[in-house]
Amino acid sequence: MDDIQAFARQVFASQPFSQFIGAELTQSSEDSAELTLSIRDHHKQQHGFVHGGVISYLADNAITFAGGLALGGNALTSEFKINYVRPAVGLYLVARAQARSVGKRMAICQCEIYAVDDDSEKLCALAQGTVVLAV
Amino acid sequence: MDDIQAFARQVFASQPFSQFIGAELTQSSEDSAELTLSIRDHHKQQHGFVHGGVISYLADNAITFAGGLALGGNALTSEFKINYVRPAVGLYLVARAQARSVGKRMAICQCEIYAVDDDSEKLCALAQGTVVLAV
Amino acid sequence: MDDIQAFARQVFASQPFSQFIGAELTQSSEDSAELTLSIRDHHKQQHGFVHGGVISYLADNAITFAGGLALGGNALTSEFKINYVRPAVGLYLVARAQARSVGKRMAICQCEIYAVDDDSEKLCALAQGTVVLAV
Amino acid sequence: MDDIQAFARQVFASQPFSQFIGAELTQSSEDSAELTLSIRDHHKQQHGFVHGGVISYLADNAITFAGGLALGGNALTSEFKINYVRPAVGLYLVARAQARSVGKRMAICQCEIYAVDDDSEKLCALAQGTVVLAV
Repeated sequence: MDDIQAFARQVFASQPFSQFIGAELTQSSEDSAELTLSIRDHHKQQHGFVHGGVISYLADNAITFAGGLALGGNALTSEFKINYVRPAVGLYLVARAQARSVGKRMAICQCEIYAVDDDSEKLCALAQGTVVLAV
Repeated sequence: MDDIQAFARQVFASQPFSQFIGAELTQSSEDSAELTLSIRDHHKQQHGFVHGGVISYLADNAITFAGGLALGGNALTSEFKINYVRPAVGLYLVARAQARSVGKRMAICQCEIYAVDDDSEKLCALAQGTVVLAV
Repeated sequence: MDDIQAFARQVFASQPFSQFIGAELTQSSEDSAELTLSIRDHHKQQHGFVHGGVISYLADNAITFAGGLALGGNALTSEFKINYVRPAVGLYLVARAQARSVGKRMAICQCEIYAVDDDSEKLCALAQGTVVLAV
Repeated sequence: MDDIQAFARQVFASQPFSQFIGAELTQSSEDSAELTLSIRDHHKQQHGFVHGGVISYLADNAITFAGGLALGGNALTSEFKINYVRPAVGLYLVARAQARSVGKRMAICQCEIYAVDDDSEKLCALAQGTVVLAV
């Protein structure tokens, strides 16, 4: 169990885009993953909210890691869907993904993305997607 | 018509995340938009392919602009779905979104994302989503 | 609160397709709804499993009612996504939908569909969608 | 090619739910399928429009057949997403699905659903989903 989580951290650390955007893999379990991103001005869109593309990156990648941990190997998100439910403002974003159904080579995961401020945590987006083991 | 396209270019230029990630709004019409991104190493995941989060940003934003142009104002993507169909490798990515149904305040758009190399253009992802006029 | 639930039951009873397919509105709360369907041979596809279209009907409609209850009025599902996670076999299907985010005119709902047998209840599908108040 | 289309017609004819709901497989090619449904009162919801569940059945099944034809075998829809864009009224519904990306065991398909009247054909819904070969 520890091995697969160490493997997840190593895979995450070897993703140049995750480094570039500034995300961290802050929690993981045998079937879940949490990514955290400190909100910077360069993450924003024209109205000062976090760009949807940043939120969709977090959903995509948290889903990949939750699914990969549940499947026990190198995995990728083959598809997902996201609903944005509130403009994302605050100090940081937290994406929590959970495998809800796990087969031999495929897992279905759901992800909640929260905007966190000093004293609040508000749901910003809900996502659902498919993770498959990389061949 | 020219005014709304100039407005779209101005909105795009005022998106810090689009600048940060290096995307360009390369085409627009009264109901479509094309974004282009030169692929850099910092866009990649652990296997050297473009990270799904970059592709989902392109889909989200191309859909926003196609929908906003069709609706004639400031708009945002309220939800979308993406299927990744092939690992994205090449010189650049092109995302082409088209409004397929346009109401007073809501448009449904589809988007195709291609990976382009010296001599080929390959479909990497298909997306579909909802754009709503910002209040 | 009772009024809106009585209204939900009345709306459900006035849906000819829900009667035709044989579904029942078996539970409801201020932001959730449960539909139940006794599995009959005419619900099946070529392999003897319940047809995906039956499951997607349950997801669509359970989401509509959960969202409509949360929004407090006549509502419709404007879009949804479904992942089938296991062939549906058993005595009946139960679809449980919950509003996860509720605005003035729009709610985002998630739905789980279970296949129930004498002694087991197995997750068959997961769905997520948008409900809007009918004008 | 004819063989796979004859196989598709045979599979369709052996789906009890497709018979029950009254759908027909009216066209097929090597990578596309068209289903047609004559609208009856029992297909409707409380406002007299065709129920979303009927439309989602058509999307699900047209996608299955387009993908199965492209993959050359018995297939199933593993997930899909649908946007309803207009209330469905008219004489019949036509769902046209096309495989947009075809791998060895998986195809991504898009589907358009039209409501057809004596003198008009109006887009009612857009769908996109994944089809996988049955093992």
